[in-house]
Amino acid sequence: MAFLNPSSPTSEKLEKQFVEFRHHLEESGNLRERIQAVATEIDSVTRIIYASLLLVHQCLPVSEVIEKAKAQIGVLKEHYSRLSEIVRECPGQYYRYHGDWKSETQTVVSLLAFMHWLETGTLVLHSEVEEKLGLIPTELGLDVDDYLVGICFMSNELPRYVVNQVTAGDYDCPRKVLKFLTDLHAAFRMLNLRNDFLRKKFDGMKYDLRKVEEVFYDVKIRGLAANGDSVGEKQAQGQS
Amino acid sequence: MAFLNPSSPTSEKLEKQFVEFRHHLEESGNLRERIQAVATEIDSVTRIIYASLLLVHQCLPVSEVIEKAKAQIGVLKEHYSRLSEIVRECPGQYYRYHGDWKSETQTVVSLLAFMHWLETGTLVLHSEVEEKLGLIPTELGLDVDDYLVGICFMSNELPRYVVNQVTAGDYDCPRKVLKFLTDLHAAFRMLNLRNDFLRKKFDGMKYDLRKVEEVFYDVKIRGLAANGDSVGEKQAQGQS
Amino acid sequence: MAFLNPSSPTSEKLEKQFVEFRHHLEESGNLRERIQAVATEIDSVTRIIYASLLLVHQCLPVSEVIEKAKAQIGVLKEHYSRLSEIVRECPGQYYRYHGDWKSETQTVVSLLAFMHWLETGTLVLHSEVEEKLGLIPTELGLDVDDYLVGICFMSNELPRYVVNQVTAGDYDCPRKVLKFLTDLHAAFRMLNLRNDFLRKKFDGMKYDLRKVEEVFYDVKIRGLAANGDSVGEKQAQGQS
Amino acid sequence: MAFLNPSSPTSEKLEKQFVEFRHHLEESGNLRERIQAVATEIDSVTRIIYASLLLVHQCLPVSEVIEKAKAQIGVLKEHYSRLSEIVRECPGQYYRYHGDWKSETQTVVSLLAFMHWLETGTLVLHSEVEEKLGLIPTELGLDVDDYLVGICFMSNELPRYVVNQVTAGDYDCPRKVLKFLTDLHAAFRMLNLRNDFLRKKFDGMKYDLRKVEEVFYDVKIRGLAANGDSVGEKQAQGQS
Repeated sequence: MAFLNPSSPTSEKLEKQFVEFRHHLEESGNLRERIQAVATEIDSVTRIIYASLLLVHQCLPVSEVIEKAKAQIGVLKEHYSRLSEIVRECPGQYYRYHGDWKSETQTVVSLLAFMHWLETGTLVLHSEVEEKLGLIPTELGLDVDDYLVGICFMSNELPRYVVNQVTAGDYDCPRKVLKFLTDLHAAFRMLNLRNDFLRKKFDGMKYDLRKVEEVFYDVKIRGLAANGDSVGEKQAQGQS
Repeated sequence: MAFLNPSSPTSEKLEKQFVEFRHHLEESGNLRERIQAVATEIDSVTRIIYASLLLVHQCLPVSEVIEKAKAQIGVLKEHYSRLSEIVRECPGQYYRYHGDWKSETQTVVSLLAFMHWLETGTLVLHSEVEEKLGLIPTELGLDVDDYLVGICFMSNELPRYVVNQVTAGDYDCPRKVLKFLTDLHAAFRMLNLRNDFLRKKFDGMKYDLRKVEEVFYDVKIRGLAANGDSVGEKQAQGQS
Repeated sequence: MAFLNPSSPTSEKLEKQFVEFRHHLEESGNLRERIQAVATEIDSVTRIIYASLLLVHQCLPVSEVIEKAKAQIGVLKEHYSRLSEIVRECPGQYYRYHGDWKSETQTVVSLLAFMHWLETGTLVLHSEVEEKLGLIPTELGLDVDDYLVGICFMSNELPRYVVNQVTAGDYDCPRKVLKFLTDLHAAFRMLNLRNDFLRKKFDGMKYDLRKVEEVFYDVKIRGLAANGDSVGEKQAQGQS
Repeated sequence: MAFLNPSSPTSEKLEKQFVEFRHHLEESGNLRERIQAVATEIDSVTRIIYASLLLVHQCLPVSEVIEKAKAQIGVLKEHYSRLSEIVRECPGQYYRYHGDWKSETQTVVSLLAFMHWLETGTLVLHSEVEEKLGLIPTELGLDVDDYLVGICFMSNELPRYVVNQVTAGDYDCPRKVLKFLTDLHAAFRMLNLRNDFLRKKFDGMKYDLRKVEEVFYDVKIRGLAANGDSVGEKQAQGQS
């Protein structure tokens, strides 16, 4: 490839350098394409899981809804295992390509967290998500920011859940969700968040909290809350 | 038209070519103008229909509201018949000019779908829209994407309808609309939508769903829902 | 797939319709992907051709430069043959997918036109481009707008060519290019262009014309033009 | 810190997790601040170097201009040494923070490349930049993209340089720069650039090339070029 004056030794070095760059760029381009292909597949699985979980808003039995969604976790695990293999090929460059699977992983966290909460009423821990996905921290760990953003996304789903549960007659749900969200919000407040994407998502959590508080208020003021310490119209009328 | 050196045979060919292009561009320009003229008229009719249908939010009797709107369908039919004639002049170029009547047709679909739903409580089918408009698929069919986008637009109208119906005392409306929207949303989820305009419109449908859920919740928690398992103020008052 | 209430006959029809849509969307999605894959390959070939043609600015012999570029036309032909096959699968939908290969084809036209001009000094005709690419108008013809936009792109390359040719000592080049561009500009002016992309590109052609006129002026005023009717300093000094 | 119900063991784990996150986020926040502080200092030095180099456009002797600029390289070296120390604290996270010093480094490359070119007439190699800055590839290497973007920036400086040199009477400068830029452009074309920032910067290089070609043309047509095949005014005057 004699695109430069071949007589000069400088030109030779220059050509050699660009030949190397070409290999370098091709290699990283290929790597990126492979990563993006896996990310696309992860995205497809999260759509399937989300479609299953949505049925919880139509008040199908939680166990049934979860069952279907859980069946997909194995598939996710396989995709992350492939991702891990690819990233292992370029040690120390996790964060070079991280942007290519970041948003997909945030969605994965939000779905796993929602499922976990439906089953246990507690927040799935960072280490538990890694375990569910078969992630090995020394190879392809779960970025803390991705975990936290995913949790914020999960919080966004809760107001709708509460509304539909109350409609279906579960009047104790708002209290439980409010307790959970209040604790979660308090936990996030411990963090000294920079002025970034995560901070913005966390700021949105307060609207979820407010909405759930309003539903809890509606239930409480009508004396529908389970534990009987009803107030509102009932009490007021009792005094009349 | 001797704009080029007439002596050269190349110039003659060149001139001949541009004379042809001129005819070609004039022809397609005229066609486009005629199509846009029809599209403008379709747009006018949809404004009239929409103005009639809006009265449903003021809780006029549905039959009366529909009657007025229906009277315009014949006019729409005529316009589409003219459109079909024009498009027939340029076989195989439906999609060349499609952009010129696309958005008008999406609005037409949304209005027909809303009217159909008001009358029957069901989703108007693609083939039914074609029939109502006198469209012959082999000549000027209804593009599937336009049908689907139109249905999404129709969904956007439902939260407002529900709110106004409840205000007017129809407490069973939220349940029916919620059932309809939930089924519609599930049907759309079957489609593997690409990341395009239709996908964006479909993503918006979940806000309609959520809003209707909230109205249903309001009605339910106040024991206003038709099916009698009333709670809230009603119950509280029963205790006084 | 019982996502809807299976008891109702309407729901059955609705489900059937969405199943059909799903197939329809998958099919057109696949088609589009295949078209985009071919377009990407066409794009790669045009880069190779362009890289070869650029050497003309370094004043390598035209015949040599053209030779290399021409070797790629066969590859282009194969790609367009594949494109034609794909488009044949969906009769009457050429313009539905046209946007996916339009800009690549405009570049192809500009390169073929530049090569043709370098060899013959004349404008390649629309029919000649079709012939070079093996396009059959009844199957996958060359859109007239794409041809015209491509010619405008080709015109943009000419000022640079003229500058470099004069630098290399070819003082007759500006006159020839100016004649060509003037005729081309006149030919375009015959067309009644709408206010669109093509019109904008054509408007840019006048800057190419002006630049070439300036180079011609520089050459002429210095008595460098081939045909000896020199003016400027020479004449002025002759009078002293 | 009893922000959660301390009785529940889940809450304890949750609290423990967020305490860890807090440390984690503080640590990475501090790291980022320290990196940004160094980047700001690198930026200051590049401004000083650029201000010195600008004098080359006023045609001060190159050696004198370079001398002043070179004096700052030691300072740059120290800053990069500090940067390297900081990045060493977080192994495998080079690309996590890379965005914080990327653009400053691209400017550094462009300045070093310009100085190198002024002194030697050749392109500074990637390895030479690393050497000048005391960068050790295994610790804090120079990202290939940053090197390439920096070279593009350097190319942007050349048209202005050529114009000012010709103004000052150096008529051989355009030929030399044109040769250099043509080779550089050819070298870049070897790379199969993705559609990203670097590609965009490279696309801009052709305007530098064109501008230098035009200056070379001006010099040549007036018979000012060094190699004697003068034409134009000179010749015309010879005839008088």
